[in-house]
Amino acid sequence: MRAQSGAVLRRLARRLADARSGNQPLRQLSSAAAAAAATGDERREGREEEHGWQWKRAALGAGLGLSLLAGYAATSRRAHADAHAHPGASPSDPAFQVPARVDLPVYKREEVKKHGKGSERMWVTYKMGVYDITDFVESHPGGDKILMAAGGAVDPFWALYAQHKTIDVMEVLEGLRVGSLDPTEPAPVHTADASDPFSTDPPRHPALIVNNPKPFNAETPPSLMMDNFRTPNDLFFVRNHLPVPKTDVEKHRLRVEGLGVGEGKEVDLSVAELKKKYKEHYVTSVVQCGGNRRADMQKFKKVAGLMWEGYAISNAKWTGVRLRDILIDLGVDPADERIKHVHLEGADVDPTGKPYGASIPFEKAMSPEVIIAYQMNDEDIPADHGYPLRCIVPGVVGARQVKWLTLVRLSDVESPSHFQQKDYRAFSPSVQHGEELDWNSVPSIQDYPIQSAFCLPASGTTVDRDSATSLPFGPVVLAEYSFPKDGTVDVAGYAWSGGGRGIIRVEVSPDGGETWYSAEMEQDPDQNQDKMWAWTLFRASIPIPEGAQTMDLVVKATDRSYNTQPETAAGIWNIRGLLHNAWHHVEVKIRG
Amino acid sequence: MRAQSGAVLRRLARRLADARSGNQPLRQLSSAAAAAAATGDERREGREEEHGWQWKRAALGAGLGLSLLAGYAATSRRAHADAHAHPGASPSDPAFQVPARVDLPVYKREEVKKHGKGSERMWVTYKMGVYDITDFVESHPGGDKILMAAGGAVDPFWALYAQHKTIDVMEVLEGLRVGSLDPTEPAPVHTADASDPFSTDPPRHPALIVNNPKPFNAETPPSLMMDNFRTPNDLFFVRNHLPVPKTDVEKHRLRVEGLGVGEGKEVDLSVAELKKKYKEHYVTSVVQCGGNRRADMQKFKKVAGLMWEGYAISNAKWTGVRLRDILIDLGVDPADERIKHVHLEGADVDPTGKPYGASIPFEKAMSPEVIIAYQMNDEDIPADHGYPLRCIVPGVVGARQVKWLTLVRLSDVESPSHFQQKDYRAFSPSVQHGEELDWNSVPSIQDYPIQSAFCLPASGTTVDRDSATSLPFGPVVLAEYSFPKDGTVDVAGYAWSGGGRGIIRVEVSPDGGETWYSAEMEQDPDQNQDKMWAWTLFRASIPIPEGAQTMDLVVKATDRSYNTQPETAAGIWNIRGLLHNAWHHVEVKIRG
Repeated sequence: MRAQSGAVLRRLARRLADARSGNQPLRQLSSAAAAAAATGDERREGREEEHGWQWKRAALGAGLGLSLLAGYAATSRRAHADAHAHPGASPSDPAFQVPARVDLPVYKREEVKKHGKGSERMWVTYKMGVYDITDFVESHPGGDKILMAAGGAVDPFWALYAQHKTIDVMEVLEGLRVGSLDPTEPAPVHTADASDPFSTDPPRHPALIVNNPKPFNAETPPSLMMDNFRTPNDLFFVRNHLPVPKTDVEKHRLRVEGLGVGEGKEVDLSVAELKKKYKEHYVTSVVQCGGNRRADMQKFKKVAGLMWEGYAISNAKWTGVRLRDILIDLGVDPADERIKHVHLEGADVDPTGKPYGASIPFEKAMSPEVIIAYQMNDEDIPADHGYPLRCIVPGVVGARQVKWLTLVRLSDVESPSHFQQKDYRAFSPSVQHGEELDWNSVPSIQDYPIQSAFCLPASGTTVDRDSATSLPFGPVVLAEYSFPKDGTVDVAGYAWSGGGRGIIRVEVSPDGGETWYSAEMEQDPDQNQDKMWAWTLFRASIPIPEGAQTMDLVVKATDRSYNTQPETAAGIWNIRGLLHNAWHHVEVKIRG
Repeated sequence: MRAQSGAVLRRLARRLADARSGNQPLRQLSSAAAAAAATGDERREGREEEHGWQWKRAALGAGLGLSLLAGYAATSRRAHADAHAHPGASPSDPAFQVPARVDLPVYKREEVKKHGKGSERMWVTYKMGVYDITDFVESHPGGDKILMAAGGAVDPFWALYAQHKTIDVMEVLEGLRVGSLDPTEPAPVHTADASDPFSTDPPRHPALIVNNPKPFNAETPPSLMMDNFRTPNDLFFVRNHLPVPKTDVEKHRLRVEGLGVGEGKEVDLSVAELKKKYKEHYVTSVVQCGGNRRADMQKFKKVAGLMWEGYAISNAKWTGVRLRDILIDLGVDPADERIKHVHLEGADVDPTGKPYGASIPFEKAMSPEVIIAYQMNDEDIPADHGYPLRCIVPGVVGARQVKWLTLVRLSDVESPSHFQQKDYRAFSPSVQHGEELDWNSVPSIQDYPIQSAFCLPASGTTVDRDSATSLPFGPVVLAEYSFPKDGTVDVAGYAWSGGGRGIIRVEVSPDGGETWYSAEMEQDPDQNQDKMWAWTLFRASIPIPEGAQTMDLVVKATDRSYNTQPETAAGIWNIRGLLHNAWHHVEVKIRG
């Protein structure tokens, strides 16, 4: 009985959750080819319609779902609002408008921490309130994602999911209150240690899956990845090679020099000058680490490097000025055959003072999609992602998209940087560990090959044969989101290819690649199949085969050049575990 | 003993054969990346050096090899030169200068035909001479390729291999003479049948492997494919959809019209006008049929279409004028956003009078590599390949490189042609035979995915463990040609990727993909890794594994975007068998 009403609630809750927050609305494409053929105008109209519809649906959800949820969160322990319960909340803040009990115990943060994920009673804090979410988890519209906050604050998560900031939600939350944080306890302070070059690194979102703390490297949690077409800044994966440099937007300069500019003609541009002198452009574009899915390649055969699972990839809107505009303004001739490469350097330096560096081909640098960005998702680029300037090179591996950009140098040769010459080059599978490496025998990685992976479900998930509601699905961005049918497994993930080659299809298999189903795709309607810098999100409901005890789920994508992914790492394995793009497998168990 | 001296002779003969005829000299690249980094000037010098060296080597071979061969072709049956033996031969023709026996029988062509490949005594004709090559085959510098001519004329083959036209070779040949063709027999005449639309198709080279006679479709013989970096016109694979149209270079017109040109401003250009008005350019570029290697995909699961084995791909130098130059001259603005596609039509028509048609994206049409060609390998384009004009679209599937070009139309939509709309689109493996096809759900093929295949050895070849000389190798073009070592299998073939993405490596495996070896590559030194329109030829000597009775040879390539080929057809199979690019396997048996 309880389970049944739980399922009903969950369905209603999902209806509510099926809204997108803060993202540019995007259109679901049943056929990428059809979309490519459609004119821009038709597509824009379509989007607006769906946008309206979506928010109507969300509103309906709020009306239906949350009042029920509030009812479900039965115990009517309401008290009067108290300024102590939500200190600092403005009168317009829903938290201020919902009465909270003040007759409950006061806790230190250390005590809350003991009530983390997996403990008997799981607690979270919101502002100064302490809440027991144990019995609520099953009804949470966002599924068990709420457990990510267990033992700590939900505030950083609510910052990403604006739908929480309503009176209805506050009412549910206050129904779960078990106490307040001790107002006399000082807020945790980040203490800088002068001997640690990483001590001034910025604070990070608690949901990031840390691969290495110093230098900081972390993946986006896959369970949150499908919630936004543009990855929120706080959840964007981080790949730092060195400590985050302290930059000052007033003092920061971008030096532009080299072949075609000429000695004495080089410039040092401030961020303000850049913005003033050149036209602003934006591009929605993926950054993917060359080592993404390395852990998967390691399963095939040992490789060396950070063990990224598959979520060292994110997608954001980048705003800035075109590199080509700057170079042409400085008198660089796009047809100058002496210039072959453009070096890029960052403000991040190694212990010997050498900056991070890379280079891209001159022709790519002159392409309109390459920008010197100062905004990420319409905000200043965060410290971890290159504040105040980052070179965005759509279609190319992350390692060339230099953060904290200080230098652009036109040259006849590639950057001499270690990261260009002795890293980010994928050897042949015939080269073994321990061999002397001939780095010149392999070209530096630029364009990324075609890639795709599941974000949901996680490997090892158990699924009920008769109901497919047990998956930890949050609000996926696909507009035609429908409830999973009984007897199916819902899957979702991303696909992307380098060089602007659009994804023309994503196919998923329930049986290791014997049978295929085409997935629904969501793509950026402002980009076409020949210049698709943003990723493709996909979703499919796969029927559970009769009698199956387990399912070997597989995903693979095809791009505009009809390139596709290899089945296994057999032909692409390389000692550094770079560019792993074999078919992605997820094993789920079937119950019933 | 005989076998041993045969082997010695064969080695010497190969040294001779290791010369390239008529092709632009090309440089062997031990590392593609190193070449990409080298400057153009250095590379050009390098080539010239090698060029000189090569011809020196060839001359040495002629001195050493053929005098020995002449000695081997023992029987000294020489007689005086006789004009009857070589009627029509000019005094400068080596054939004229070598005495031939005239006391031998006279044969009709029908009689010669009975002495074809596999018969007890194998004959060939050259001009009017009849020769028994049975005992010579083993010593032939070009290996058993000579059997392709058995039962008929070697003249079309010698037209391709100029090294035969020497007095030394004529001496060997005359040593094999068994008679002469009957001078009273009329030469075979091609008789046109007015009721057969194909009756005016041109004559073809006898070595082509015919897949379908009407319309004519034929592959390059793989055993001859490695002999030239640029495929000779006569051996270039042919993919005709309709009868070859009769075109007249004087009357032929290219009409240019559509969006951006404007009504009343369209032009009808003669071939002479084209040549006069626009600057001449050339590009060495591959044409590959979308159905290449379909027979291989059929082994995985039934597909529909012409059963191309893997040699519906060739590489030639194309000379003509840039399409962009014509369009800009007609006032077309490269930034005109209304123009999305460029339609191309040929003079070949179906029974209802509809011409062959296709289209390419406008941006591609405006790229400098796209040319309206009037020459193929420095000769007028042959009838089968589009005389007098063909649109060459490097990096793109053959079906868009329209032959007998009559029309260029700028448009906002793709060509409505059947060949654009309902063919040359590769469905998902989830689409089965018999299903209603939603052609709009898949984009038309443009860029080709990465491809590679062996040309040699042929599947089923038996190799001696202790000597690797039994493979049917001819003179491969790789400059650093070395004799195969005992205990190895020599392999060779081609690799290519669409979109100008250069091949960065080719790897071969002796054991189905467990172990890999990097192959040597030959590439066009005038092209770089980001604009590589020509193919890559590869060669490798693979050690025969201990105790192996058979070898499952595999080849796969990697391109500049680090895209690679899928292991099998499992993820790319499609009902039409298009774009098969899985790993290519060849099985060889090991003797000893």
